[in-house]
Amino acid sequence: MSLIQRDLNCLWHPCAQMKDYEVFKPLIIKRARGSIIELSDGRKIIDAIASWWCKSLGHNHPQLKKALLQQLDKFEHVLLANTTYETIVQLSEKLTALMPSLKKVFYASDGSSAVEIAMKMSLHTRQIKGETNRKKFIALSNSYHGETIGALSVSDMGLYRDPYKELLFDVAFLAPLPYVLTRNDPLWGNCQQHWDILKKQLDLLAHETTAILVEPIVQGAGGMRLYSQDLLKRLRDWTKQHGIHLIADEIMTGIGRTGKMLACEYANIEPDFLCLAKGLTSGWLPLSAVLTSDEIYYLFYDEYDTGKAFLHSHTHCGNALAVSIALATLQVMEQEHICRYVSELEPLMFRYMSEIAEHTGKLENVRSMGAIVAADFIVRDPQQRVGFEVYKSAVKLGALLRPLGNTIYWFPPLNIEFSTLQELKEITQKSIEMVKF
Amino acid sequence: MSLIQRDLNCLWHPCAQMKDYEVFKPLIIKRARGSIIELSDGRKIIDAIASWWCKSLGHNHPQLKKALLQQLDKFEHVLLANTTYETIVQLSEKLTALMPSLKKVFYASDGSSAVEIAMKMSLHTRQIKGETNRKKFIALSNSYHGETIGALSVSDMGLYRDPYKELLFDVAFLAPLPYVLTRNDPLWGNCQQHWDILKKQLDLLAHETTAILVEPIVQGAGGMRLYSQDLLKRLRDWTKQHGIHLIADEIMTGIGRTGKMLACEYANIEPDFLCLAKGLTSGWLPLSAVLTSDEIYYLFYDEYDTGKAFLHSHTHCGNALAVSIALATLQVMEQEHICRYVSELEPLMFRYMSEIAEHTGKLENVRSMGAIVAADFIVRDPQQRVGFEVYKSAVKLGALLRPLGNTIYWFPPLNIEFSTLQELKEITQKSIEMVKF
Repeated sequence: MSLIQRDLNCLWHPCAQMKDYEVFKPLIIKRARGSIIELSDGRKIIDAIASWWCKSLGHNHPQLKKALLQQLDKFEHVLLANTTYETIVQLSEKLTALMPSLKKVFYASDGSSAVEIAMKMSLHTRQIKGETNRKKFIALSNSYHGETIGALSVSDMGLYRDPYKELLFDVAFLAPLPYVLTRNDPLWGNCQQHWDILKKQLDLLAHETTAILVEPIVQGAGGMRLYSQDLLKRLRDWTKQHGIHLIADEIMTGIGRTGKMLACEYANIEPDFLCLAKGLTSGWLPLSAVLTSDEIYYLFYDEYDTGKAFLHSHTHCGNALAVSIALATLQVMEQEHICRYVSELEPLMFRYMSEIAEHTGKLENVRSMGAIVAADFIVRDPQQRVGFEVYKSAVKLGALLRPLGNTIYWFPPLNIEFSTLQELKEITQKSIEMVKF
Repeated sequence: MSLIQRDLNCLWHPCAQMKDYEVFKPLIIKRARGSIIELSDGRKIIDAIASWWCKSLGHNHPQLKKALLQQLDKFEHVLLANTTYETIVQLSEKLTALMPSLKKVFYASDGSSAVEIAMKMSLHTRQIKGETNRKKFIALSNSYHGETIGALSVSDMGLYRDPYKELLFDVAFLAPLPYVLTRNDPLWGNCQQHWDILKKQLDLLAHETTAILVEPIVQGAGGMRLYSQDLLKRLRDWTKQHGIHLIADEIMTGIGRTGKMLACEYANIEPDFLCLAKGLTSGWLPLSAVLTSDEIYYLFYDEYDTGKAFLHSHTHCGNALAVSIALATLQVMEQEHICRYVSELEPLMFRYMSEIAEHTGKLENVRSMGAIVAADFIVRDPQQRVGFEVYKSAVKLGALLRPLGNTIYWFPPLNIEFSTLQELKEITQKSIEMVKF
């Protein structure tokens, strides 16, 4: 039996209508190097979305491999309760150096868990402080924070949440957001008009709210949409005034993706909780982190019998193999000046996508931030799955693009070579031209 | 600055009152081999709880290491949407061979996510089938299924859930359970009296319930308590009669821990959903799996525009490094006849713990199943943290025991040597004798 048939007999793939696999068979992966995935039939395809936004340093980076091998000689994983080791201390020091006020790190494996840990910590502080009326969360409209029940509750995506709405708790979603296409939009610097509307919504909720969640600057699954940094500044000011926490979900934007280590830096703000995952290990292994302040940490710090401890546990909290890769990732980010390179990629990626839009006449709303560029297909027949058609065409031509509905985007490894980007441009353009719409 | 001080400056450890670390400093891990963890000061301590119940084949198993190195030469991780590879197909084939009716595997990273995926799938089938009145979950009293909001909702542990109760959805917990100490208890074979009470609770909920969750045979975080296999049989019959799903959370019990590959085998039942994690990779890397039937799978299988797809996504779904370790784990389980070895460990572990109970007069309710043995401290002063005191003593003497409250237990690597077990017995006995209670 063929490997594909064996796969379809037993494997339920993520985020898929499995019937689609009848017409779009799974690609058989043989090797991956840098920005290139090699298939068993010898074809090479560009990993244009960094394997779901995580492989920030590409595949098989030698320094990451070396770090993993070194850790393998020591130990792979020991529970982190009452233990420590050099590598995790070094990683934690580097993470807490990202922002002056974020002094403590709590580890988990996936992004959803990180979001839920931050939310649990926020709510728990209200118990400890006797502010038991503060139990609501606010999120942005069009947000995505993950797919476990807590993370899904604060995600404003009907497609992902509707079948499970019976289990979700009630959350307020803020709209309209001051979306921009680039940082040249005047809204980027000042979103006063939007704020006037949003502030009214916020003020009504202030007394009962424990935290606001944001994907800073770029909303990922919501269609790679960028919004004004000024909104973040205003939200930070408003939350501080009202004693409300700000949770920054930088799972997708963090560790260099936007050209800065953290997207929050564009607004020059520091959240109360910061969530990292994906790029944290350059997509090698599952690892997530929640950073928070000493102020929060010491609320939980007391005699055991006061019952204030944060008792969340997670088997692979601080997994040593994942931690070794994360530390090496942060080292490579510095040594290879990745953020500087991303700032060179940004105008190139924007220009390439704009040229495709102009040449094909099939794209609108070209937008970019760091090593992310996106645009929307101009679709006439809403029944047509243009994104899916382009996806299939692109794979044939040599690129693993995977549009979000009718939004096409590039989210490549941060160290993708210019020549590969040039190739990606040509493949993308041809893929769009191959599809009639 | 010392490593310990540096650790305490930036690391928030899991499941801990961090103030406890003032008197019980974190151990600095240097290496780990087999059942032994080596500290930086040269001490060697026995990993008596398999690093939170996951390191089933001990540390640094050469065959697992070899599998990881082989995978490293190919690729570390490529998104699993529309891709496949030989190793994951082999793993999925081995997993779907565990039980005849469980034919499909969906992957995630941690146990909580696996539980939430099973719950989401169950609820989603009700939407698809138009059974929208079936939206409730039932769980067992004293249950533990994880700590994200969905998993915590079905966990009956006040200590872990109370601070977050505002976010939890409503779940019915069944009590009383037919607990036993060993399989020799008559209750093990017949729990009719308990069932008569439980069935009344169940019948009232039947029409509105989508699924019942169980930790089959052994409840872990609830104090390593064993219950009658007959309850599982009856629950399986009852759920089938009423068209309700049975979700078996074998995150802790699965992959050989109880002396069979799955604890469900003791009751000769097959659930609709089976959750695995922890021992699945022998605790090397985060990986979890949800197994389900073709019947469930094909409910979701239809044209894309019907909106039936299960769109849950997870970045590291099918992470190749973790998958390579999981496949090697299953191979080693067979080649080294681990389940047979566990059946030899069981009476030895039970005898040793019983001897300690007899010798010290400080333990009651010695109970065992496979490579798990537990007992409760006979505590006079409920304010005294006996478990914590014994934990500290044991570390000094050379074993990483970590009692659950006032329950002491061994949950060692499944391939622990008899001589190490003998040593663990002596350390445990002395540790108990060192604490006045």
